[in-house]
Amino acid sequence: MGAEPVNLEVTDVDIGSETPTVLLNRGDAEELGVNPLDRIIIRSDTETETGIVKVTERIVDRGELGATEKLRHLSGDVDVSIAPKPGSVSCIRRKLDDEELTREDIQRIVKDVDHNMLSDIELGAYVSAIYCNGLSMEETIALSEEMAEVGGSIDWTDDVVADKHSVGGVAGNRVTPVVVSLVAAAGVKIPKTSSRAITSPAGTADTVEVFCPVELGIDEMRDVVDRTNGCMVWGGSVDLSPVDDQIIRAEHPLSIDPEGQVIASVLSKKKSAGSTHLVLDVPYGEGAKVGDLPEARRLARDFKRVAEHLDIEAECTITRGGSPVGRGIGPLLEARDVLRVLEGEGPEDLRLKSLKLAEILLELVEADAQVEELLESGQALEKFREIVEAQGGDPDVAPGDLEPGELVHDVEAPRGGYVTDVDNEAVATVARRAGAPNDEAAGLYLESKHGDEVARGDVLYRVHAEKQEKLDEAVGYANSNTVMRVGDKTDSLVERV
Amino acid sequence: MGAEPVNLEVTDVDIGSETPTVLLNRGDAEELGVNPLDRIIIRSDTETETGIVKVTERIVDRGELGATEKLRHLSGDVDVSIAPKPGSVSCIRRKLDDEELTREDIQRIVKDVDHNMLSDIELGAYVSAIYCNGLSMEETIALSEEMAEVGGSIDWTDDVVADKHSVGGVAGNRVTPVVVSLVAAAGVKIPKTSSRAITSPAGTADTVEVFCPVELGIDEMRDVVDRTNGCMVWGGSVDLSPVDDQIIRAEHPLSIDPEGQVIASVLSKKKSAGSTHLVLDVPYGEGAKVGDLPEARRLARDFKRVAEHLDIEAECTITRGGSPVGRGIGPLLEARDVLRVLEGEGPEDLRLKSLKLAEILLELVEADAQVEELLESGQALEKFREIVEAQGGDPDVAPGDLEPGELVHDVEAPRGGYVTDVDNEAVATVARRAGAPNDEAAGLYLESKHGDEVARGDVLYRVHAEKQEKLDEAVGYANSNTVMRVGDKTDSLVERV
Repeated sequence: MGAEPVNLEVTDVDIGSETPTVLLNRGDAEELGVNPLDRIIIRSDTETETGIVKVTERIVDRGELGATEKLRHLSGDVDVSIAPKPGSVSCIRRKLDDEELTREDIQRIVKDVDHNMLSDIELGAYVSAIYCNGLSMEETIALSEEMAEVGGSIDWTDDVVADKHSVGGVAGNRVTPVVVSLVAAAGVKIPKTSSRAITSPAGTADTVEVFCPVELGIDEMRDVVDRTNGCMVWGGSVDLSPVDDQIIRAEHPLSIDPEGQVIASVLSKKKSAGSTHLVLDVPYGEGAKVGDLPEARRLARDFKRVAEHLDIEAECTITRGGSPVGRGIGPLLEARDVLRVLEGEGPEDLRLKSLKLAEILLELVEADAQVEELLESGQALEKFREIVEAQGGDPDVAPGDLEPGELVHDVEAPRGGYVTDVDNEAVATVARRAGAPNDEAAGLYLESKHGDEVARGDVLYRVHAEKQEKLDEAVGYANSNTVMRVGDKTDSLVERV
Repeated sequence: MGAEPVNLEVTDVDIGSETPTVLLNRGDAEELGVNPLDRIIIRSDTETETGIVKVTERIVDRGELGATEKLRHLSGDVDVSIAPKPGSVSCIRRKLDDEELTREDIQRIVKDVDHNMLSDIELGAYVSAIYCNGLSMEETIALSEEMAEVGGSIDWTDDVVADKHSVGGVAGNRVTPVVVSLVAAAGVKIPKTSSRAITSPAGTADTVEVFCPVELGIDEMRDVVDRTNGCMVWGGSVDLSPVDDQIIRAEHPLSIDPEGQVIASVLSKKKSAGSTHLVLDVPYGEGAKVGDLPEARRLARDFKRVAEHLDIEAECTITRGGSPVGRGIGPLLEARDVLRVLEGEGPEDLRLKSLKLAEILLELVEADAQVEELLESGQALEKFREIVEAQGGDPDVAPGDLEPGELVHDVEAPRGGYVTDVDNEAVATVARRAGAPNDEAAGLYLESKHGDEVARGDVLYRVHAEKQEKLDEAVGYANSNTVMRVGDKTDSLVERV
């Protein structure tokens, strides 16, 4: 290990780095005895920072330290020396060896992720280790608590702060704006943060953005909630979970979602958001994140146990998620469904599911309210318009104002029969190819739903796009994949293998 | 998934990247529907390339594609579209799920690593997956064969090409130059490639470099071997294993060395080097890479089985590796030991081990030669000088020419008794702190060895350094850690817990 510090002159380098990366000339790296991805300690007169090493022969000269984006504040002469590996790397190593981690280990990992101290290789090993070897209930509780400790947090000073979450994977399923409106209309505080689409055609935040801005800071969010009891904002703008963002970045390319990490990510965020009562929806079925009923039950039970430790009263619902909920898929098309439901119309499954989740949540907080009445009387709609206005949107928006993409293509039933299958993933892919979520009016509208009787030539679904080439792409995919299956009535009951 | 291509103008960006990274402005990334670490296909009039996405808001403007080092050849207008994930990512995912991989899966992984197509997160997941879930014999054989297929290779057109390898972890242990000299002196071809130090105070290549250049290309290497039967070059300069370099880069920060990967890395390199007969040393003991005898036996057996499939005749030796072999630690100090052994003197354990390994290798190739005679007659020394000269070094070098670092510190026995323990890792750390391998004359010299009787105040070892601050660092470490333990004679036999 290199020992004495080397004196270097800081120079700014832009490389689009999200970690505190420093570029060293190969000669200086050798003198220091550091390899790529090792860390160095950087000391100036006024501060001490840690950097992750990249080695170059050209971009910085000997005697220079290339400081990237996160270390922009450094300047002048600095003393650089080799740093010990972050303590969390040995914890990750022990998890790879299938050892149970202590709370201190987990604290160390969370802290190092929060400070961007782990290289991508180490982050990849972390998510792989907990995917391969799992997290015990104790580890999951510790991880949830430690993740809640970092990043922002909101204190509402209320005894009851309601919240709602869905594990996801179901196309459409835009119940949140309806639930928020119902619960807030019942006089219960529900400051809801939601995500944007990562691989889906729309996240709740993308859908709400059709009505009003969703990128509110904590103060603006608090202001909206003070005035209306509710809000619907993008979670990213209140920065409640910087650690979660990093972990998702590592899980995403591998398409893994280790269960203990899912629980910790969701519940730590709820804790930081100040939630006291939570209804948590676990949809299961083909294409949903949870494949079958036993798995859904186990996950729901684990969620409840961890929530209890975090002092969150949680109720879990297990719902069928094997096909889309609602008819519109894509930000605007889902927004139109939401508004129609609030107006007393709209897709029945979306209305019933929203009412049920709101009812459970209101029971949980012991509120004295009838959800059907809140909806039928128009109080929920009025509450929705209040929130939209408070967030800076147009309160008078009507379903007719929401015009889906003008370029359309109808996919027809190739035979008469019953819709036996609507594939969540295929539906999402068609909508994404059509341009959602970036083209907000793109997506598709399900004219027929699971179980419907159709005649040959009936429209199964209509693809909407804003751009011709996107429409062509979506139609190309729709023509070569089975998005909806039409069969005999028995086909939906009996599968022949 | 974004669909139609976006037209961008290439601009060069230097970020010290070892992967085919491209920088996209956030707006273009959103339009394409790509996230950081996704891949894009880049088409110009003349070529098609794949890039790994970084997203930036400042470094490149909208409409620009920032091409980093590996994509420097791109220029002008290009069409960019989202690429499917490399096929190997789903193979890695399946290995995380503990599935057995097929040869095609493994081929896909090796190819994508070779083309730098995996992000660090995916590479971290790959080494984690095979560490957690292991590789079967079939997978190890397939991995060895596929790794041998990529990168450079050498064809010697000889029936017998001898080779030698050690699994490592033992301080000193510089048997290779002696073995090469003995085997080449017996008239057997032995074109040896070796590594440099990664975490140790010296690799064989670092030690040989004290005598002569080691960075020879394949043609130069072939020329040396044609003239002398042997060579001792740095493996990195003949590029036999580009995939291995990437994998080591991922294993190193995690300090993991999955067994199947070790076997595949070693044997694929031997296959690419054209070796037909191999003696493979598996040292075991505290601080060595292999901890105990049963593990060493199992590893040796697996090595032999895989070697058989690669048509390499391998003999494995299991040797005690719980304490250093030889007396010098550090490039020059080890080089001096080597030269002394070839002159008929030097540390006894280094001489005996070198003779034994050479004897086994000569038996394996059915050569008619007596290793003791080759050493005592001076033929091995003469052969060594020939090789050094052929590689461009001074053939008349004498041990007296090799002067260890002038700054010295003696560590003395704190009591009388017997040396019961010499800690490999602590010895390596002292030598590295003293400046090895960058300061070639730095390191330490073991005046006493395991089992020696010492009086209070006798010198246990002498630290050598070229720079005062390095000496201070090494001494600081030596004073606060037990590098050598002195106890009663029974202490080496009975451990009291």
